[in-house]
Amino acid sequence: MDTVLSSRSREVVVSIDRPFVIIGERINPTGRKVLAAEMKEGRMDRVRADAIAQVAAGAHMLDINAGIPMADEPALLVAAIRAVCEVTDAPVCIDSSIVEALEAGLSAYEGKALVNSVTAEEERMERILPLVKKHGAAVIGMANDETGISMVPEERLALARRIIQRAADHGIPQHDVIIDPIAMTVAADPLAGQITLATMKLIRDELGNNMTCGASNVSFGLPDRPTVNAAFLPVAMYAGLTCAITNPLIPEVRRGVLASDLLLGHDEYAMKWIRAHRAEQAEMSAKAGPAQ
Amino acid sequence: MDTVLSSRSREVVVSIDRPFVIIGERINPTGRKVLAAEMKEGRMDRVRADAIAQVAAGAHMLDINAGIPMADEPALLVAAIRAVCEVTDAPVCIDSSIVEALEAGLSAYEGKALVNSVTAEEERMERILPLVKKHGAAVIGMANDETGISMVPEERLALARRIIQRAADHGIPQHDVIIDPIAMTVAADPLAGQITLATMKLIRDELGNNMTCGASNVSFGLPDRPTVNAAFLPVAMYAGLTCAITNPLIPEVRRGVLASDLLLGHDEYAMKWIRAHRAEQAEMSAKAGPAQ
Repeated sequence: MDTVLSSRSREVVVSIDRPFVIIGERINPTGRKVLAAEMKEGRMDRVRADAIAQVAAGAHMLDINAGIPMADEPALLVAAIRAVCEVTDAPVCIDSSIVEALEAGLSAYEGKALVNSVTAEEERMERILPLVKKHGAAVIGMANDETGISMVPEERLALARRIIQRAADHGIPQHDVIIDPIAMTVAADPLAGQITLATMKLIRDELGNNMTCGASNVSFGLPDRPTVNAAFLPVAMYAGLTCAITNPLIPEVRRGVLASDLLLGHDEYAMKWIRAHRAEQAEMSAKAGPAQ
Repeated sequence: MDTVLSSRSREVVVSIDRPFVIIGERINPTGRKVLAAEMKEGRMDRVRADAIAQVAAGAHMLDINAGIPMADEPALLVAAIRAVCEVTDAPVCIDSSIVEALEAGLSAYEGKALVNSVTAEEERMERILPLVKKHGAAVIGMANDETGISMVPEERLALARRIIQRAADHGIPQHDVIIDPIAMTVAADPLAGQITLATMKLIRDELGNNMTCGASNVSFGLPDRPTVNAAFLPVAMYAGLTCAITNPLIPEVRRGVLASDLLLGHDEYAMKWIRAHRAEQAEMSAKAGPAQ
C-alpha cells in the first residue's frame, strides 16, 4: 500500500516495499525557547535553517508545528509552511492539535500534505477528516480514543480500523491513512516496547496500512537515548513501521535507519550506505581542515 | 525452550524468555597473528586476558577456538579451555572443525559445554552427535548440508529439523540443540538479511529452538560495520535469536544488545541499562583522570 505525499515539485512515496521515510521533527517550538520566541515575532530564519539542515541530513519530509501558547497559531503555521517551502521541496507534515491551524495550513500548502494527526475520538474524526478530504491530503491516525491509550494491541488495532473506516466514509482512501500504533516509554512499563511492536505486527498483517510513530518516545527518561532509539527503529521497521517523525541530525538515528534499510533489502549493493559513509567522512575531513 | 550450559560453578540459561546471551568470540586465532603465535607456543596469557576482558564487557559465555595451521589443535584447544577456566566461570563454547579437537576439549571440560558446531551433513552428524551425547553437552546445528547454504528459508528450516531429529536419535533432547540459521553478508546479496530473518521466524514458529548466529557476517565488506551489526542484532532478537557469538568489546554491539533486551521486555525498569551506562561513565571518568 503506497501513500504518496508531494510538494509543488517533489513526490515522496511511503511503502513497505521502499526505503524508510524520515519526517524531520525539528521545526517544533515545544521545548525550544529561542525558536518559539523568534516564531512568535514572525521571524522564520531558524525555521528555514532547520528545514535545510534536516533535508541535508536525510529527511525526506518535514513536520511543521507552530504550537506556541498565546500566539496566533494558524497564522504562524502558515508562515512557517511558506518559509519551509521557500528553501526545500520536501513535502510537509502539518502538525497541530488546533483544527483551525490545520485548516489554515492545508489551505496555504501547495501539494499533498500529511496531517498530524487525528485520533479515534468522535469529535476529532468528525472535524478533521472532512478537512483532509477537502484538501486531498493524507492523515496520521493515532490508535487512541476518548478513553486514552490501551495497553492491549488488539484494542489499538480496533481503533486503527475505526479511523480507516471513518476516513472511508468521508471519501479518504485507505492508503491515505498512516496509522500511529503509539510508542510509549519502556522506563515506565517494561512491556511498552513489546506492546507497540505487537500492535505494529497486527496492523501490518490485518490492515496493511503504512505506519509512523514518535520513535523517540520509547527512550524517554533513560540515559543514552540515541542508542535506545537506534535499536528500536530497526525492530519497528521489521515489524512494519514505514516512516517516523524523528531527528535525522542525530547520527545514531540517521545511521540506524540507513543500516536497517540495508538489512531489510532496501539498499541494493549497499549503495546508499556506502555513499552516506563517504559523505560523513568527507564532512569530518572538511571540519578537521586541510591535511598537513 | 531452555538450553542450560554450565561451568563448574556457574549456569547460563539461553531462552526466548530471558535476556540475550552473548558468547564472546575473541578467543580465536583466525586473523590474529600474535595470538596464533603465542598459542602455538603454548603461551595462554593472552587467552586468559581475552577471557577476563570479554566477561567484564558483558560476555555470558566464551567461544574457544584453537584452529592454527600445522599445530596440534586438540592439545592447544585443551590448554586454552583450561586457561579460560582458571580465570573465569563463564561456560564455554568449544569451537573446532576437527572432530578430534572437539573430543579432546569435551573430555577436558568440567561442565556442560556448547559444541560449535554440527551441520546437516551426514558424516558430520554421525561423528559429532555421539560425542555431544557422551559428554552431556549441547550443540549448535548449522542449517546447511553437503550441497551448501540454501537461500530458501524453508530449506534451511528443513535442515534444522533434520539435525534436531538426528540429535534425538542419538538421545540428545531438542532443547540442547541451538540452531544457527546462518547470517550472510548483505553486501553480496541484498536479500541476505531478509532470508536470515525469515529463517529465524520460521524456526521460532515451527520448532521453537534457541538460535545463535555469527551476527557480524551481515556487515562483511561494508564500511562502519559496528553500526550495521548493532542494527541487525535488535531485529534478529525480535525474530527469535536468543544468543550470538559476537564481540562484546565493541561498544555498539554491547549497547545494542542491552537496548534490545530493554525494548523486548527483558530489563525491568531499565535497571541493567542504567547500571551499564553508569559503569561506562565511571570508566570514562577514570580514564580521564581526576577532575581539576
